[in-house]
Amino acid sequence: MRTLKLTVAYDGSAYHGFQKQPGLVTVQGVLEEVLCKLCGEEIATAGSGRTDANVHALEQTVTLKTNGRIPVKNIVRAAASLLPNDIVVISAEEMSEGFHARFSAKGKRYQYRLVVNEHDSPFLVKYAWQIREAIDIKAMNKAAEYLLGSHDFSAFRSSGSIDGDPVKTIYSAKWTCKGEEFIFTIEGDGFLYHMVRNIVWSLVQVGLGKRTPENFLTELHSHRTEFLNEPAPAQGLYLAKVFY
Amino acid sequence: MRTLKLTVAYDGSAYHGFQKQPGLVTVQGVLEEVLCKLCGEEIATAGSGRTDANVHALEQTVTLKTNGRIPVKNIVRAAASLLPNDIVVISAEEMSEGFHARFSAKGKRYQYRLVVNEHDSPFLVKYAWQIREAIDIKAMNKAAEYLLGSHDFSAFRSSGSIDGDPVKTIYSAKWTCKGEEFIFTIEGDGFLYHMVRNIVWSLVQVGLGKRTPENFLTELHSHRTEFLNEPAPAQGLYLAKVFY
Repeated sequence: MRTLKLTVAYDGSAYHGFQKQPGLVTVQGVLEEVLCKLCGEEIATAGSGRTDANVHALEQTVTLKTNGRIPVKNIVRAAASLLPNDIVVISAEEMSEGFHARFSAKGKRYQYRLVVNEHDSPFLVKYAWQIREAIDIKAMNKAAEYLLGSHDFSAFRSSGSIDGDPVKTIYSAKWTCKGEEFIFTIEGDGFLYHMVRNIVWSLVQVGLGKRTPENFLTELHSHRTEFLNEPAPAQGLYLAKVFY
Repeated sequence: MRTLKLTVAYDGSAYHGFQKQPGLVTVQGVLEEVLCKLCGEEIATAGSGRTDANVHALEQTVTLKTNGRIPVKNIVRAAASLLPNDIVVISAEEMSEGFHARFSAKGKRYQYRLVVNEHDSPFLVKYAWQIREAIDIKAMNKAAEYLLGSHDFSAFRSSGSIDGDPVKTIYSAKWTCKGEEFIFTIEGDGFLYHMVRNIVWSLVQVGLGKRTPENFLTELHSHRTEFLNEPAPAQGLYLAKVFY
């Protein structure tokens, strides 16, 4: 049986998240329908992880096993002809047996897009968090540095989540600015449920001057979720890359 | 009676173009419904011109006359609370009597967004023309220079259109490149129906090496539409500014 790895980009606006759910239109559900046609058999895929409704992916990874004979070089074009245009298979590769999108992953990169503008742009409604207030990127980056290394990230886990080990290692976490656009890029070996969005929300409070970088550090060390009011809006979040 | 000038941005993806049409959802139709509520009376607006389905506006201008007393400084926020988030009133101004979005206009700027990438991006489907082939921006800009000045633009008018004078004056017309993205910016005192999209399509043929800049000049001088096969896709076009 063959093991295939697909790299997939999607605009999450029209979907109830990545993961297949009965009765709901999801990215994985739509993808599997198309893969069934391409492979000529029932296909069950594995993603590197879930993404919530309205969250996007620049490079999500999906693996599948199949007896189908479609050459790997034909998959990208064949998928393009059958998929809706908000889901794109960027590449397809043959992998050795046992390779798994989630269990083989060594880390991930997320990006979060924040735009400071005078009025909401109609072109960014589904693609960024738009705010009116000026933000202090130096203060946000000072706070973001506290994320580096291994920590118990329970403070940034949404309540009710039942992920395993709350200790994760963050390799990099930084805001960059281009004009009115602020991009937060974070890489780590794993992320808890809502962790990136909770971190972004809290960093933006620092950027707005409502909290200090030291407040952020206290929050991180608290291992409690009570500091947070809400995760940053879903539409600003992009799963940017999965590392193997 | 007051004369108001609104500057409006919109994502044209969900609309049957700008202009009000019975039974169809259009930008002007949605805007007038909201303005009726704000002004407390029936409102008929005038736009600086039509935009087709899927064409966007960074700054469309709309004028209206009203006896309503809503202060001009409240209009932006009040409109934001009632409009769908793909239409945004950027500013509102009180104008002297006789000012008209279309008849007072001295010129317009359009932008066209072309992206050369390996695969269609799901994030650009509604916002750019995406192509696979490398293009020669120098050749396109050499051809674009022939547009400058006053010409009979009949060759770039879509057949069946009944605009008036085909002679228009173009002040600037240039492609710029940022990474994989090519933006064509054109300013002129007026534009015929489909003129920008027809010009873009023809310039891209030059960029692809299928025609020479001299072929483009011959086409311009021909005053006939037979050279063209199709206008460039609507979703790449943005009405960027109207000059008064």
